[in-house]
Amino acid sequence: MGLKRICGWIIRKKSIGRIIIIEVSSDSVKPSVLVLKEEREPELFKLGMEIDIGTALCFEGEEAPEQRSARGVEYIARKIEVYAKPIEPLPVDTMGKVPALLDTRIKYRWLLVRNPVEKAIFIIRNSLLNAAREYFSKNGFIEVQTPKIVAAGAEGGATLFKIQYFENDAYLSQSPQLFKQMLMAGFTRVYEITPYFRAEKYNTTRHLNESWGIDVEQGFINSVEDVLQTLENLITYIIEYVLKNNKEELEILGATLKKPSTPFKRLKFQEAVDILRSEGLEISETEDLSDYAEKKLGEIMAGKGYELYFIVGFPWASTGFYYMRDEDGVYTRKFDLDYSGLEIASGGQREHRYEKLLNALKEKGLNPENFSFYLEAFKYGMPPHGGFGLGVERLLMRMLNLENVREAILFVRDRTRLVP
Amino acid sequence: MGLKRICGWIIRKKSIGRIIIIEVSSDSVKPSVLVLKEEREPELFKLGMEIDIGTALCFEGEEAPEQRSARGVEYIARKIEVYAKPIEPLPVDTMGKVPALLDTRIKYRWLLVRNPVEKAIFIIRNSLLNAAREYFSKNGFIEVQTPKIVAAGAEGGATLFKIQYFENDAYLSQSPQLFKQMLMAGFTRVYEITPYFRAEKYNTTRHLNESWGIDVEQGFINSVEDVLQTLENLITYIIEYVLKNNKEELEILGATLKKPSTPFKRLKFQEAVDILRSEGLEISETEDLSDYAEKKLGEIMAGKGYELYFIVGFPWASTGFYYMRDEDGVYTRKFDLDYSGLEIASGGQREHRYEKLLNALKEKGLNPENFSFYLEAFKYGMPPHGGFGLGVERLLMRMLNLENVREAILFVRDRTRLVP
Repeated sequence: MGLKRICGWIIRKKSIGRIIIIEVSSDSVKPSVLVLKEEREPELFKLGMEIDIGTALCFEGEEAPEQRSARGVEYIARKIEVYAKPIEPLPVDTMGKVPALLDTRIKYRWLLVRNPVEKAIFIIRNSLLNAAREYFSKNGFIEVQTPKIVAAGAEGGATLFKIQYFENDAYLSQSPQLFKQMLMAGFTRVYEITPYFRAEKYNTTRHLNESWGIDVEQGFINSVEDVLQTLENLITYIIEYVLKNNKEELEILGATLKKPSTPFKRLKFQEAVDILRSEGLEISETEDLSDYAEKKLGEIMAGKGYELYFIVGFPWASTGFYYMRDEDGVYTRKFDLDYSGLEIASGGQREHRYEKLLNALKEKGLNPENFSFYLEAFKYGMPPHGGFGLGVERLLMRMLNLENVREAILFVRDRTRLVP
Repeated sequence: MGLKRICGWIIRKKSIGRIIIIEVSSDSVKPSVLVLKEEREPELFKLGMEIDIGTALCFEGEEAPEQRSARGVEYIARKIEVYAKPIEPLPVDTMGKVPALLDTRIKYRWLLVRNPVEKAIFIIRNSLLNAAREYFSKNGFIEVQTPKIVAAGAEGGATLFKIQYFENDAYLSQSPQLFKQMLMAGFTRVYEITPYFRAEKYNTTRHLNESWGIDVEQGFINSVEDVLQTLENLITYIIEYVLKNNKEELEILGATLKKPSTPFKRLKFQEAVDILRSEGLEISETEDLSDYAEKKLGEIMAGKGYELYFIVGFPWASTGFYYMRDEDGVYTRKFDLDYSGLEIASGGQREHRYEKLLNALKEKGLNPENFSFYLEAFKYGMPPHGGFGLGVERLLMRMLNLENVREAILFVRDRTRLVP
């Protein structure tokens, strides 16, 4: 086995006669278990008496020949170095025995990640992003970064945070939409992992005012189906990657994640309306589905065996100006991807024809002058293209069966939280 | 060889009698060269007559048995599909024969990336980030995301963009500094790839108001040397990765990148001051080096054979409040990494002891109440830690010998640019 050096924090300490058992939360999701025997290592035993929960330490040790702890790998220590001791008793239980309220968990997330359950979530978040990048690398997408300080919002003014940019008014970017589209004039496939800023006043279990997204745009598509396929492949890749690389974390979380069955169901918006109406809901044919309707639809789809499903063909009256419309002018190539009743991604085929795009802007009551920098990109050989934005926290929330999207992000920005 | 399908834009077209040569800019940095012969493929030749520079197309073809073009791989086309044609003549030369002013290049970057020289920069930018992530994965760092909307700035008020966050005043994050430090209470090594927002009024070749950084923090360090080593290893890893994976791009850019010699020189701040004074410059012993001084130092260091060098031990009077001070109270564990006279990274060992940190805040004239969410994290076993922020654009600028940092980012946000 050899000697290992492991650093972390004491999350549990137990004395049984002349034995001290110390659990150290380190990089792996399961704690390292140090067994100190007065007889075997009297000096370390003495040190063990003096240190308590919250202490930051590194130890050198080797795996115990006999592994008796179900909670983690047991070590026989050769050396222990204390790096820091708490100056106050910990305000939360980092072992997770005392359940904390969500509010407390959000406030002390940086401390609670010592708890294997909290840590597991963020190890899997890391995996999710690694998986996504691996997928993009293998499929010829180039990573780009687009500006977060913008002169115009992709989705209109109501949900924009305003910012003073020297002499000018500016906004925080709601999505890379306009910029990733412009890049379709020079790259065939791009992606970005990016913060989204939305000044929505919602206070729900599924909304954040600053969240992270995986944004994709691909050119030279033949139909919106090419984009659906990319998203379906990406989600499948991510889930399979986590299933393969995060067995311990999934186990600790009690998550029942499984490989999704493909192809994901493509449900027409109008079909969704019909289904929901047949359940007695009042549903508009020209508006986006409400959170409640999405949730209800999730239950119905679950009953039919669908966990992940696309809703395709949203009505023009409900979408952003940049979606391509069908010939009839009523429906568009916009889709959502829902995961058990939660919208986790939104995308579609875009309007790439300059004249039609200009008319669409006007029809939506927007001033083309504010979008001239964007429109310019459609004049010089803009191929048919489409893409999507996928919410990292929402995907993680569903994969791990979390109750609140706030559990999936380290620092929460919502209607009432600006710190920590 | 078999049939390949390649999509892109025509950047060059030449007719020689009954032969048309079309260069298509696609995903690879070198264009694909289509040779259409009237005799061999009369239908495609006819189509070739009708399409011009800027056309977006896909072709299917096989590599020509005889490769005669020095500019790219030559193909014999079997099929050509036109996806879009320009509706106006292109405002810039995407082949790069007509040199464009920087202002024009920034305005039309999304179009000019069809030009192999511009495209090469962003392919290498993608590689740089891939390399960094690969390094972090191999070395036990977990990727995190910290908030960009914050209640307090890490570096004080003068360079903060203000934002209205519902009922509260808030700011755009200058750096993840405070948050990545808080995470040292629960993770041993973190990194983030993140936008930086700085309301600096500079208008120089080295400043952007929105730039991207690779931010690192690592705990359980024994001295600042551990952090220097991480940064040195990271830079070396990135450069070797690009040397290995981007030969064609480097060649097209005429970049003379080479493997840096290690260890990077560790130059004490006071030594730097002495060197610069001996050259006749007036240098303060308590202030950060000016851009001019950094540049001058770069020339001197180049003469001694140092391209990459650390400046270590900045005086307390010149640094942020969070750096650990030496016993003497005059100097700190803050360092910069300079690359040929340009500061590309800044970091150091932090003060992890609660009382000392509190005093440091006060001494810098900051109100501890504004930082209470941050101070809290230092009470419960905060190990010694340190880290750095590395500017992506500045590193890329030096690696590729670009003249202006604006050449290294797709969309520029500076003193005068808010669009595109």
